[in-house]
Amino acid sequence: MSSFGTLFKVTTYGESHCKSVGCIVDGCPPGLALTESDIQPQLTRRRPGQSKLSTPRDEKDLVEIQSGTENGLTLGSPIGMIVRNKDHRPGDYSETDLYPRPSHADWTYIQKYGTKSSSGGGRSSARETIGRVAAGAIAEKILAKVNNVEIVAFVSSIGEVSMSRSPQDAEFQNVLNTITREEVDGVGPIRCPDAKVREEMVKVIEKYRDAKDSIGGVVTCVVRNCPIGIGEPCFDKLEAKLAHAMLSLPATKGFEFGSGFEGTKIPGSQHNDPFYYDEDFGRLKTKTNNSGGIQGGISNGENIYFSVAFKSAATISQEQETSTYEGKSGVLAARGRHDPSVTPRAVPIVEAMTALVLCDEFMIQQARTSTRLLVQDK
Amino acid sequence: MSSFGTLFKVTTYGESHCKSVGCIVDGCPPGLALTESDIQPQLTRRRPGQSKLSTPRDEKDLVEIQSGTENGLTLGSPIGMIVRNKDHRPGDYSETDLYPRPSHADWTYIQKYGTKSSSGGGRSSARETIGRVAAGAIAEKILAKVNNVEIVAFVSSIGEVSMSRSPQDAEFQNVLNTITREEVDGVGPIRCPDAKVREEMVKVIEKYRDAKDSIGGVVTCVVRNCPIGIGEPCFDKLEAKLAHAMLSLPATKGFEFGSGFEGTKIPGSQHNDPFYYDEDFGRLKTKTNNSGGIQGGISNGENIYFSVAFKSAATISQEQETSTYEGKSGVLAARGRHDPSVTPRAVPIVEAMTALVLCDEFMIQQARTSTRLLVQDK
Amino acid sequence: MSSFGTLFKVTTYGESHCKSVGCIVDGCPPGLALTESDIQPQLTRRRPGQSKLSTPRDEKDLVEIQSGTENGLTLGSPIGMIVRNKDHRPGDYSETDLYPRPSHADWTYIQKYGTKSSSGGGRSSARETIGRVAAGAIAEKILAKVNNVEIVAFVSSIGEVSMSRSPQDAEFQNVLNTITREEVDGVGPIRCPDAKVREEMVKVIEKYRDAKDSIGGVVTCVVRNCPIGIGEPCFDKLEAKLAHAMLSLPATKGFEFGSGFEGTKIPGSQHNDPFYYDEDFGRLKTKTNNSGGIQGGISNGENIYFSVAFKSAATISQEQETSTYEGKSGVLAARGRHDPSVTPRAVPIVEAMTALVLCDEFMIQQARTSTRLLVQDK
Amino acid sequence: MSSFGTLFKVTTYGESHCKSVGCIVDGCPPGLALTESDIQPQLTRRRPGQSKLSTPRDEKDLVEIQSGTENGLTLGSPIGMIVRNKDHRPGDYSETDLYPRPSHADWTYIQKYGTKSSSGGGRSSARETIGRVAAGAIAEKILAKVNNVEIVAFVSSIGEVSMSRSPQDAEFQNVLNTITREEVDGVGPIRCPDAKVREEMVKVIEKYRDAKDSIGGVVTCVVRNCPIGIGEPCFDKLEAKLAHAMLSLPATKGFEFGSGFEGTKIPGSQHNDPFYYDEDFGRLKTKTNNSGGIQGGISNGENIYFSVAFKSAATISQEQETSTYEGKSGVLAARGRHDPSVTPRAVPIVEAMTALVLCDEFMIQQARTSTRLLVQDK
Repeated sequence: MSSFGTLFKVTTYGESHCKSVGCIVDGCPPGLALTESDIQPQLTRRRPGQSKLSTPRDEKDLVEIQSGTENGLTLGSPIGMIVRNKDHRPGDYSETDLYPRPSHADWTYIQKYGTKSSSGGGRSSARETIGRVAAGAIAEKILAKVNNVEIVAFVSSIGEVSMSRSPQDAEFQNVLNTITREEVDGVGPIRCPDAKVREEMVKVIEKYRDAKDSIGGVVTCVVRNCPIGIGEPCFDKLEAKLAHAMLSLPATKGFEFGSGFEGTKIPGSQHNDPFYYDEDFGRLKTKTNNSGGIQGGISNGENIYFSVAFKSAATISQEQETSTYEGKSGVLAARGRHDPSVTPRAVPIVEAMTALVLCDEFMIQQARTSTRLLVQDK
Repeated sequence: MSSFGTLFKVTTYGESHCKSVGCIVDGCPPGLALTESDIQPQLTRRRPGQSKLSTPRDEKDLVEIQSGTENGLTLGSPIGMIVRNKDHRPGDYSETDLYPRPSHADWTYIQKYGTKSSSGGGRSSARETIGRVAAGAIAEKILAKVNNVEIVAFVSSIGEVSMSRSPQDAEFQNVLNTITREEVDGVGPIRCPDAKVREEMVKVIEKYRDAKDSIGGVVTCVVRNCPIGIGEPCFDKLEAKLAHAMLSLPATKGFEFGSGFEGTKIPGSQHNDPFYYDEDFGRLKTKTNNSGGIQGGISNGENIYFSVAFKSAATISQEQETSTYEGKSGVLAARGRHDPSVTPRAVPIVEAMTALVLCDEFMIQQARTSTRLLVQDK
Repeated sequence: MSSFGTLFKVTTYGESHCKSVGCIVDGCPPGLALTESDIQPQLTRRRPGQSKLSTPRDEKDLVEIQSGTENGLTLGSPIGMIVRNKDHRPGDYSETDLYPRPSHADWTYIQKYGTKSSSGGGRSSARETIGRVAAGAIAEKILAKVNNVEIVAFVSSIGEVSMSRSPQDAEFQNVLNTITREEVDGVGPIRCPDAKVREEMVKVIEKYRDAKDSIGGVVTCVVRNCPIGIGEPCFDKLEAKLAHAMLSLPATKGFEFGSGFEGTKIPGSQHNDPFYYDEDFGRLKTKTNNSGGIQGGISNGENIYFSVAFKSAATISQEQETSTYEGKSGVLAARGRHDPSVTPRAVPIVEAMTALVLCDEFMIQQARTSTRLLVQDK
Repeated sequence: MSSFGTLFKVTTYGESHCKSVGCIVDGCPPGLALTESDIQPQLTRRRPGQSKLSTPRDEKDLVEIQSGTENGLTLGSPIGMIVRNKDHRPGDYSETDLYPRPSHADWTYIQKYGTKSSSGGGRSSARETIGRVAAGAIAEKILAKVNNVEIVAFVSSIGEVSMSRSPQDAEFQNVLNTITREEVDGVGPIRCPDAKVREEMVKVIEKYRDAKDSIGGVVTCVVRNCPIGIGEPCFDKLEAKLAHAMLSLPATKGFEFGSGFEGTKIPGSQHNDPFYYDEDFGRLKTKTNNSGGIQGGISNGENIYFSVAFKSAATISQEQETSTYEGKSGVLAARGRHDPSVTPRAVPIVEAMTALVLCDEFMIQQARTSTRLLVQDK
């Protein structure tokens, strides 16, 4: 459904063609400095239309806080946020009156709901993610205050072109250790920090754009300074929550953390992360980080990193042979211009969902730790 | 925490060294024929010790239903189930008094809980999955009655050795269409249906066993006849729930469904699954199934299929340089015999978690559909 | 927190001095005819200022649907609703800068949140109930379509003046069987259907108004045609959910259903509701209804009825000896005009919360029943 | 359903005629000293058969901890607990094969579940409360460690015979300030601390016992030293959670806290609890406590007190004219001996549910407070 989280919870509403989209953030701690200026930057980062490589619509997406703050501080009460819908041009989608768009949600929504919205897929619209990003911006402000947590996502592959994501690749680990959002955005709309790889990515995207086609990609995200001990064993392991969060994003096909799928090929003797005592931290750390910062479902203080696969966008301008709702074969071509690669836009959304998971799990663990200190028998 | 599900909910308890492990299944529909004989087979399938390739312990794991049934039928009340712990041999783990096992949960549990169980990782024990499997057996019985749903998991790769999992590979799609549990088990403990690949897998496992090492693998799972329209848009998409369920299993590193990570490389024009009208089904179907049976978070009636990465087991008998809890460098070698590849044992556990997700989502959708039919205005 | 419900869920936001108050209704079945005109009447009924007996502010409270409907039908997606705050006159409350208002939430909010909103009690404001009423209006429309469910609340006592609420009083049972909202509102702002009692109530309220004091009361609510079999045994009995819902309303002090506290004095032989076969209904019914329509936590098809105690309003204009936040004794008198009896305004709010509980429980039971019919073995 | 709580959560299973009843307590902080001896006393207190005034069955009800503790300390993992069913004598209920017992749950269970357990009402059995009491014993141990919280319930009325429960009665407030469980139990099976009232209660119960009838009563509960600031505004006010918890108990008819229903008759000027600065506590306290320790849904540090109405037991030995399931009029008399007044047995159950609510809410507030201290901007 439309809520996510236990103690820090977001509930969203809105689809493409309605008055506004928005969310309610419940459980935000009081006393936090918070205004629209903390939230708008991430909303702006998720907007389409930032370069000629992506779709030219300009949606603005200005957020208005409705409640939960006073004099620039949170009250502890729920924070209502609204972003008005302006430029929806419903005409662009009119052929969907006849055709369910292939690999879109038009047909399954009708099967599920027995009704059809003018936008076809209703809540599968990318605008649904606005509420997530707004809520995530609050979560990451909390995390930054708590432990200087840094969450940075970037594009690691587009189509066949990919940075190394091997956990044993020193350069990749270096990127994870140092990459900033400024760097990610500073390199242009592709948001891939590797200059050489990026150049090839541009070519790939241009190729598919010219072919009225689309291409997928992978977003990798790193979390630095995650508090140790968060994540609930068994059903709510930290990686399970992150996977849930990521696969709830539109157009995702997969999730892997730490060594990921490649890690299945590395024998235990190399895959295990040996412990050593780190003088600077005054505690054990691991020499390698195939675990991706999570062991037994619980954060261990190393970098958390994971990757999310995004499929090639389903909406393309070239003609597709398919069928009408009624079962008549025919040819569909989406009108309007469409992004050949939505992967770069997913960057702030991945960050937002990460922040939502971590903030909620952090607060849950705070309850456990602070209560334990009061009751334990030694 | 230890509960999973909304209307069909399982709550589990138990770790390695306690009296019993078990679960409470809440929300099972009444009137369902159910005895221990419906549950035991899957528990037996998850037991170690079925062949010389895996660890020789014999845990038995006999389930006893405590409540919720009468005269072989469910009552609608919660079903309590217990499996006694018998053969735990705590001595085998005694060196963990000094060393946190690398890439195990010993260290993070202490960080989280401020206390240490004799088994080190507490609930990260594989025995924790017994309750899941018992609950899953009930869920899959319900699904079978509802729509003849079939859930079959199998090993698709061990280390570098892999079956094709390309969505565009006809042979792979054929396996998904036809594979049965009998076939999976009939081929021996590796549980890989491809004879040639399997032979190589045996060699790989023997190699790592002889080296006192371990190796990971991938389990692929297919769901046939899933009811159409299940899965909740936005945060609880069907793939998000499945990802959550799978990443909550011990030793998992990744999840992908349908075309998965490879799908990011396939352009939209080929990746989109065109619709056609199928005379036999009397409804639209898709010609290809890169979507993996889920579009917009909702099942579309095609096969649901996904893969789960399992890392190389962290417990190995060879010596590992690491550190004690106190920060002293040293060498740890796990005593006892250890499974070089736990991936095949994960097969029934993956099936169980799949059934838990689908049964819960099915019941939620039943609420939506049956209420809609009463209230809709045309 | 700020969400209520499982399958039919409302999440609210907003306090007195923010831009707007509102809610998100998640899980509403699609295809339901719904516009603002279905919601506004109940919002208008909860407005203050409808007569000289209550406070003269006119808040308007016009609701705007933001999402979740198209062409006057629900889509199945979340319904966002907003009501702008207009007339808050913060000055009226300025003395709360010095004094925590006695028996208000000013002091406990500061203890809980470590921060103070300009309205003192933040979410304890009566405006918080607007989101509940808006959501409840949708729930009751669903219930009306499902089974012609009728929910009517009325004032049964003000101070010492009370209608009979004895379960064994024929006249009271007659009121429960026949009372309509039109009748409740038709008798003026007191909303008590008994003319004689009402006259005395007017006098009581006028007395306390003139004394710059306030007086409490009781709202009784009846549900007719509730579907049989809803309510979840054990922790979520139907009466438990109703009690939760009612005690979550501001200023409530108690809840009783059926025979209530008086029922503890009636011996079992008279309190038990004997069954008889009713030809018209073609099923068993009970001759009496001390059970209040709920047995074992489950609705039995008889009228559900219950009463909710509302305390005398804490905000009064007369001077009160109390203490400042800093601990200095002093005298506080609320500025502005204040309602001597808020109980009548609670009528639509009680109805709304009742509808929210029943709609959610109905949908849960739909899941159970429809799944049972598919799986049961005879 | 069968779970209660958010961070400190209990899930129960079991009915009268099954192998065992029990529960899983999830979220208990680690490091807490805990053995069966912490739990058994409350289970023993809820057993029937402690005197000739109550039913002579002896159920024993010995609890066995299955998991979650080691060396007498909790691990942080879920605590499984089991109590075997021994003496159920199903024959006693055999007439229920023909007759739904009036005001019991036999008929509604069949309506809800479409199936009938041999015990008729399934989970409506009093044995269902065993899991609650076991879990509550853990919760109250935590609360005692946290802030020396004391929870004491007692019988305040039986039938027409009642102690004063007026919030303005000094003697009643004195009882609330001083009553202990030892005193409650020390006065015999009635558990009413007022000697004179108790004597009359004995007579009332004997009268109804001799008449093969039953009579209801009221249990009042006080919580001393509750931490300040717990309870979540809006839907999860502390009184709403308590009401939910209490009305989820079998045979309850009502809940009131603080001044309760009587409080509706007290004008605001007297009902408001003025603040004063208390030197001993170094903080504001209230001079009176009509609020019952809760303001705006949040605990204020004063005694929390509330009362719960229990109806006359539905199962009586005298003949009752009623109908068979099939609709044939007839006469039913329960075989066996039945408790004329179950109210005194409810005392430890009310305490248990109180502890479960407070422990969960305390942990939630710990999360809020400890996070706030890390993020607030001054």
